[in-house]
Amino acid sequence: MTDDERRRAHLERLRAMFHQAPIARTFGMTLKYDEEQRAVFTLPYNPGFDHSIGGVHGGVFATMLDNAGWFTVAVHYDTWVATVEFQVRLLEPVQKEELVAVGRLVHGGKRLATAEMEVRAGGRRVAIGSGTFTVTSHPLPAL
Amino acid sequence: MTDDERRRAHLERLRAMFHQAPIARTFGMTLKYDEEQRAVFTLPYNPGFDHSIGGVHGGVFATMLDNAGWFTVAVHYDTWVATVEFQVRLLEPVQKEELVAVGRLVHGGKRLATAEMEVRAGGRRVAIGSGTFTVTSHPLPAL
Amino acid sequence: MTDDERRRAHLERLRAMFHQAPIARTFGMTLKYDEEQRAVFTLPYNPGFDHSIGGVHGGVFATMLDNAGWFTVAVHYDTWVATVEFQVRLLEPVQKEELVAVGRLVHGGKRLATAEMEVRAGGRRVAIGSGTFTVTSHPLPAL
Amino acid sequence: MTDDERRRAHLERLRAMFHQAPIARTFGMTLKYDEEQRAVFTLPYNPGFDHSIGGVHGGVFATMLDNAGWFTVAVHYDTWVATVEFQVRLLEPVQKEELVAVGRLVHGGKRLATAEMEVRAGGRRVAIGSGTFTVTSHPLPAL
Repeated sequence: MTDDERRRAHLERLRAMFHQAPIARTFGMTLKYDEEQRAVFTLPYNPGFDHSIGGVHGGVFATMLDNAGWFTVAVHYDTWVATVEFQVRLLEPVQKEELVAVGRLVHGGKRLATAEMEVRAGGRRVAIGSGTFTVTSHPLPAL
Repeated sequence: MTDDERRRAHLERLRAMFHQAPIARTFGMTLKYDEEQRAVFTLPYNPGFDHSIGGVHGGVFATMLDNAGWFTVAVHYDTWVATVEFQVRLLEPVQKEELVAVGRLVHGGKRLATAEMEVRAGGRRVAIGSGTFTVTSHPLPAL
Repeated sequence: MTDDERRRAHLERLRAMFHQAPIARTFGMTLKYDEEQRAVFTLPYNPGFDHSIGGVHGGVFATMLDNAGWFTVAVHYDTWVATVEFQVRLLEPVQKEELVAVGRLVHGGKRLATAEMEVRAGGRRVAIGSGTFTVTSHPLPAL
Repeated sequence: MTDDERRRAHLERLRAMFHQAPIARTFGMTLKYDEEQRAVFTLPYNPGFDHSIGGVHGGVFATMLDNAGWFTVAVHYDTWVATVEFQVRLLEPVQKEELVAVGRLVHGGKRLATAEMEVRAGGRRVAIGSGTFTVTSHPLPAL
């Protein structure tokens, strides 16, 4: 395999891994990678995640931001990474809209990585976040 | 109504409001208030929120922390509050366990409130968080 | 005054206000605004802020990030703003280098604003941060 | 040396290390450990760190929180630790008062530790924070 084939295979593996996870199906969320190898998650409006006055619950933005950071960081490592902490900033309320989250690697060290993430709805930036991820020695799960 | 009756009625209203929200049913999460008027959320293990290697997804801790902070802050205001931002610290991985989250009001100002929150599993503290909430002029929803 | 003159006068006032503050002199930090009205702080290496093994103390990055966010947000309001919270991510250790911090307004609401900030040393991004700022009714100090 | 003597020697070393750092002298900050081995920093009012309207600058709280977390975490490791990130929540403005910061270890792993910190003024809690610290293989500096 060339480096490029290896990279594509790694991205494909991460995508398959995500789509097999129960949480992917529960939310109805899908993962693609863009041309800069950033994880892009799409979540069509899912009424099951509305809060008491009909807006999207903060936990949904948090879940998407965590995913966007994790899967963007994971591109750069061969083993399992773990979220250490992340912060969620909710910029405006959202109702009944498709959400798209994307991550960006800010710093990738040997043992720790930092990512910034954002969620958009209809082109507006509705939430941002950032997080620390740690590189473990656990292998990725077999598919 | 006495002050005490008014307080109880407010807590009951918040509880009813939460349990009617779609997100409560989707997760299977329930809300009680303890004797110090702190919101306590319980989530029995729900396999639909596992990540790719069978642990509880970070978004679940985030959702519980957001809830625990929001509903603890909401006790102290008559109108709708909104989460401005919150931070999530994942202390250890959790598998197939019931989670209990609780909030604590750190500072309640006229327009802004700060809360600290934690999630426990089997007595261990597995996640902590903190957040800023803003007090809006929107009334709470009618039940 | 035209709008443009009013804007320039506001930036000049913020700059003068900063340079009169004791903290500006203690650190030896200076403020300019770039063409996008983002606050840019420059701190030549100051050995008084080194930690025990000769690197720049985390508190210096924090101070610069807070400043960069605050003074970028303040451009958009006529009254005093107050930092509610901010987060500091230290990407790499820095020794004996000039630091430059810049802010970026992410969201400016009526009462709350969100900013992202970064610190650079020799072109490398060495720290990032983000924060929430609240708009008060207090006037800016007379100069 | 008994374990207890070793522990005391470690605390003494950390204290000496801090007081030799330039930043300790620039701020006029002192470090003690309480009976639970938590780092306690005291900063008498220092007018050099006031902001434009005469309150204590947010960077001072940040510096104290970082210190309180770092030196509380460092008790539990033999090598140098490094601050990965920390968050600062400013609960109320402070003017011309002595500040006392204290840390608390929340989780101490092999490579990563989490701490919570707070700053008090006249008994009031005026700032809180939390942070992630990573354990490096660098030895502590010789004294």
